[in-house]
Amino acid sequence: MSLPIRSIEVDHNGTGYMPGLAIDCVIFGFHEHQLKILLLEYRNTNLLVLPAGFIRETENLNDAARRILAERTGLTDIYLEQFYVFGDQSRHDPAPMQAIMEAKGIKVAANHWLLRRFVSVSYYALVDFTKAVPIPDLLSDSCDWYDLTTLPLLMLDHSFIVQKALETLRTDLDRKLIGFNLLGETFTMNELQSLYETILGQELHRSAFQRKMLSLGILERLEKQYGGGAHKAPYLYRFVSEK
Amino acid sequence: MSLPIRSIEVDHNGTGYMPGLAIDCVIFGFHEHQLKILLLEYRNTNLLVLPAGFIRETENLNDAARRILAERTGLTDIYLEQFYVFGDQSRHDPAPMQAIMEAKGIKVAANHWLLRRFVSVSYYALVDFTKAVPIPDLLSDSCDWYDLTTLPLLMLDHSFIVQKALETLRTDLDRKLIGFNLLGETFTMNELQSLYETILGQELHRSAFQRKMLSLGILERLEKQYGGGAHKAPYLYRFVSEK
Repeated sequence: MSLPIRSIEVDHNGTGYMPGLAIDCVIFGFHEHQLKILLLEYRNTNLLVLPAGFIRETENLNDAARRILAERTGLTDIYLEQFYVFGDQSRHDPAPMQAIMEAKGIKVAANHWLLRRFVSVSYYALVDFTKAVPIPDLLSDSCDWYDLTTLPLLMLDHSFIVQKALETLRTDLDRKLIGFNLLGETFTMNELQSLYETILGQELHRSAFQRKMLSLGILERLEKQYGGGAHKAPYLYRFVSEK
Repeated sequence: MSLPIRSIEVDHNGTGYMPGLAIDCVIFGFHEHQLKILLLEYRNTNLLVLPAGFIRETENLNDAARRILAERTGLTDIYLEQFYVFGDQSRHDPAPMQAIMEAKGIKVAANHWLLRRFVSVSYYALVDFTKAVPIPDLLSDSCDWYDLTTLPLLMLDHSFIVQKALETLRTDLDRKLIGFNLLGETFTMNELQSLYETILGQELHRSAFQRKMLSLGILERLEKQYGGGAHKAPYLYRFVSEK
């Protein structure tokens, strides 16, 4: 699968882009008890950032989020969800952007479009990080999965954005579980519990968890296939199809 | 309580405001089996709209939402929550704004700031409409509560915004119930059920509703005060205080 990896080519006035508006993507990666996050490192800087970009004047906002994620990380077909707009004045700090431009050998004027205040519409997603292999774009030295428990320092307020995204992920997990499409077609209650424990960052009581999950009305238990030692196998579940 | 009711004074370039970014407020009003919504009617037009406005360059986004609501409707101290950013290109239609300006006797140039594409950060709230008495601003002929079941035609995509806000309100009701502060300090299960039925727009089974509400862990049942005919009175509940 080859993608057109493009640099963000914007002139000093930001011609062709919506002014003052950015998109940040918080991509969580889950696999076997590990929760990670996707970060880019800008070329010749030590700046780690969320995949981010700008909205074209002729582009739908949600389409822009998907395009930005694809261009900057190579990842496509990911279910992105809006979760918050970060619009405090205090998040405006032109210094990191200036450093990024200078590392590219570009001297920017003080009134450059990129140095002005931006409001960030933020999206999040949860994917299996063994199936989502990122490719850095031309602006970045690297694009990699980082452990959430030992998150390095991020540019601007990106750590705060990650924190808010994680809270949203945890709060909305019951409702978004099916959409994230993280489990196989069938799965055991143990596998489901492991997913929850990893995302919530805490151990759960087995029976209370099972009771709660069954009460949501989204799980269907399959009949056991008897034969061989199968009677020792745990029950398998699948998500009930949408009515 | 007197408020500074100001008109939106913006020059052709939108100086002092964030370009391309607007805020729309969906204010739901609840009282005794009725669900309403707050709408403004622009002077000398038949255009009904949500309370809306723009963000100052030196203002936090969430502060702007509260200021806009106060300036346009007179309502203060309302818990506003971001719920979605409407950013499809197709929502761009300069015609209604042109009509509003012309009704004010202002001829606007085709490249006027207000006629360009806007992305809308939308907020919602739920209040008791008998306690929230709106005052129209200088731009509006009226600012009133309208029945949600017979909603008139609204400007641009405002009906769609209302629909999305209503879905969010319904989905998030369990979690936001305490914050909305709609019930007295104590209330009966019947009063709580009536609130849910009005917002969800459907009747609920009494026992299933009670079971679900008690399982949320947010209600505390008060001991009955015996005396007089009080033994016939229903149980009273209150919200448990945050841990």
